[in-house]
Amino acid sequence: MNSQLQDYSHKRFNILTGEWVLVSPHRAKRPWQGQNEETSKKKRETYNENCYLCAGNTRINGEINPDYKDVFVFTNDFAALQKDAPDFKLNDGLLIAESEKGICKVICFSPDHSKSLADMTPKEIKKVVIAWQNEYKTLGAKAFINYVQIFENKGAVMGCSNPHPHGQIWSQSTLPNEVLKKDTQQLNYFRKKNTSLLKDYLIQELEKNERIIYKNKAFVILVPFWAIWPFEAMIVPKKHQKNILEMNSDETLLYAEAISVLTKAYDKIFNTSFPYSSGIHQAPTNNKDNTHWHWHMSFYPPLLRSATVKKFMVGYEMFGTPQRDITAEKAAKTIKNFIPLH
Amino acid sequence: MNSQLQDYSHKRFNILTGEWVLVSPHRAKRPWQGQNEETSKKKRETYNENCYLCAGNTRINGEINPDYKDVFVFTNDFAALQKDAPDFKLNDGLLIAESEKGICKVICFSPDHSKSLADMTPKEIKKVVIAWQNEYKTLGAKAFINYVQIFENKGAVMGCSNPHPHGQIWSQSTLPNEVLKKDTQQLNYFRKKNTSLLKDYLIQELEKNERIIYKNKAFVILVPFWAIWPFEAMIVPKKHQKNILEMNSDETLLYAEAISVLTKAYDKIFNTSFPYSSGIHQAPTNNKDNTHWHWHMSFYPPLLRSATVKKFMVGYEMFGTPQRDITAEKAAKTIKNFIPLH
Ligand SMILES: O=P(O)(O)O[C@H]1O[C@H](CO)[C@@H](O)[C@H](O)[C@H]1O
Ligand SMILES: O=P(O)(O)O[C@H]1O[C@H](CO)[C@@H](O)[C@H](O)[C@H]1O
Repeated sequence: MNSQLQDYSHKRFNILTGEWVLVSPHRAKRPWQGQNEETSKKKRETYNENCYLCAGNTRINGEINPDYKDVFVFTNDFAALQKDAPDFKLNDGLLIAESEKGICKVICFSPDHSKSLADMTPKEIKKVVIAWQNEYKTLGAKAFINYVQIFENKGAVMGCSNPHPHGQIWSQSTLPNEVLKKDTQQLNYFRKKNTSLLKDYLIQELEKNERIIYKNKAFVILVPFWAIWPFEAMIVPKKHQKNILEMNSDETLLYAEAISVLTKAYDKIFNTSFPYSSGIHQAPTNNKDNTHWHWHMSFYPPLLRSATVKKFMVGYEMFGTPQRDITAEKAAKTIKNFIPLH
Repeated sequence: MNSQLQDYSHKRFNILTGEWVLVSPHRAKRPWQGQNEETSKKKRETYNENCYLCAGNTRINGEINPDYKDVFVFTNDFAALQKDAPDFKLNDGLLIAESEKGICKVICFSPDHSKSLADMTPKEIKKVVIAWQNEYKTLGAKAFINYVQIFENKGAVMGCSNPHPHGQIWSQSTLPNEVLKKDTQQLNYFRKKNTSLLKDYLIQELEKNERIIYKNKAFVILVPFWAIWPFEAMIVPKKHQKNILEMNSDETLLYAEAISVLTKAYDKIFNTSFPYSSGIHQAPTNNKDNTHWHWHMSFYPPLLRSATVKKFMVGYEMFGTPQRDITAEKAAKTIKNFIPLH
């Protein structure tokens, strides 16, 4: 690897979004006097009577959660998207808006209030994966749903308001900004090369072996060359699959194993329950072909230097370009250190 | 205004970036059990011996700050961009990177450790504006600098590591992501209409008068139709000016007045020193014509419902589209309530 990338300010291109990230490897050692995040080392109880996600408890709208044993999915009581929003379009000079319909769901990963994905076995996580597949399929089949975004906000610092292990699914009529960018980039590549952008990228990364942190028969975990967040990582299927429905049963378990390996390693970096937002980007559920899509799951963790010091995406990042200090190569090395050899 | 925009989930188009924001006006009342930010009501001292920005103090690299009386600018001791980075380009298959040179500066707004822009008079703020003009001019004149980003991170929650009133200036060889988007959108409009996009937008907003929060002879403050952050606002010159050097002396004072009015109003919303990131977007300092640029200053404040509850731009926002609950119209009304009539 070009050693200049480890020493000097530079920018790297994100082939999936067509945007840049600014890298400042020389700056990793600046002192920190700013805000520290709170962390709790207290082990949570397995059931909490005030938790609206625990089995048997009553939610704010009066509904009672069933006595679920593994995964439980329900429609978000405070959904950001409405399924019955009337259709409208505003095209008034420079004021442009349109209605957006959708369905938002919450998915509890486990009835055990004390757990996170990092504490669950691959077999348990496989049940979450199967629930994601079901939701992608049934939501995506609705005529007014053209994209299904599966994601998790983990940790208070990531805006998560309840530590009970859970994720969300927001499905909607049009393609969100980030999905549109990846749609364009992947389509352009597919048209030119007749193969998937991420498949070719994986071939190159596996050969270089500088940012790979783990692989099994079906999946690779790596820190993408253009990573933004300090310990950002991506789980990518080796096969060119456009969505998570294309996995067979063995592959769902191998995928669950990859999630398990990565989240366990994360928790070891700073010896804390590692906060992150994760999400799956995959083919829209519109009527288009979408063969150019190669699905993948990304993790955006904010912690930078300790369990309490995070990276802030603020001034320059909001007005300019995301900026990072440690390089993708160093971050990959660090994460890899916490993955048991097998 | 289309009343549906106040009741139903919809998306709005940002004419400056070409991207969307998801608006969920029906969701403003969901309960909050998540992380609360700390706020300090303690009045700070006017001088702090441990502050590396106070006059006369020694910085980490051994330099001693002069005994400055108003504004003080120096080169960032931990700059993210290096001016002597060697030139290099990596074009290795799907790994694309290039060197990025730049100069990063810190600008102290006042020697008084206890103040923020909201506590300063328009005349004092005018000195900050003049320093911004000087920096834009001298940095921009350098052959290897093609863009000058002026910004401020205010408050610990915005990654600001020192409460001494200060901002930053990062100048660099290429155009950052956000600037590129605005460059394209403004250029396309200018080519079609032979006038500035923001000038036409201002005409429309002034006529509607639904999102205007303040105006003086030379400037308008408004909540843009496509605002992302809860109380986001924009200060725009009425004249089509491509950069801050085009202001005359009267206008710099009127601009300082607008900054004063907005920051004072912000502090009143939740009776706290209101955190935000602000930034000026203006014409690049490359050799292009750039007449299509209409400079403006934006404020992105994270507080949502109180001095301690902020909006998190996380999971859905990172993987999909920024999302907001209160509409731009309601936010404008709230801010306007805190601006004295004159
Ligand atoms: O340079 P500072 O003030 O130490 O750092 C702050 O602003 C920078 C520019 O927005 C960010 O990159 C940092 O994450 C933030 O903590
Ligand atoms: O829906 P929740 O978990 O209450 O809310 C959290 O995730 C949402 C989706 O990323 C964000 O819009 C909210 O700001 C965040 O607090």
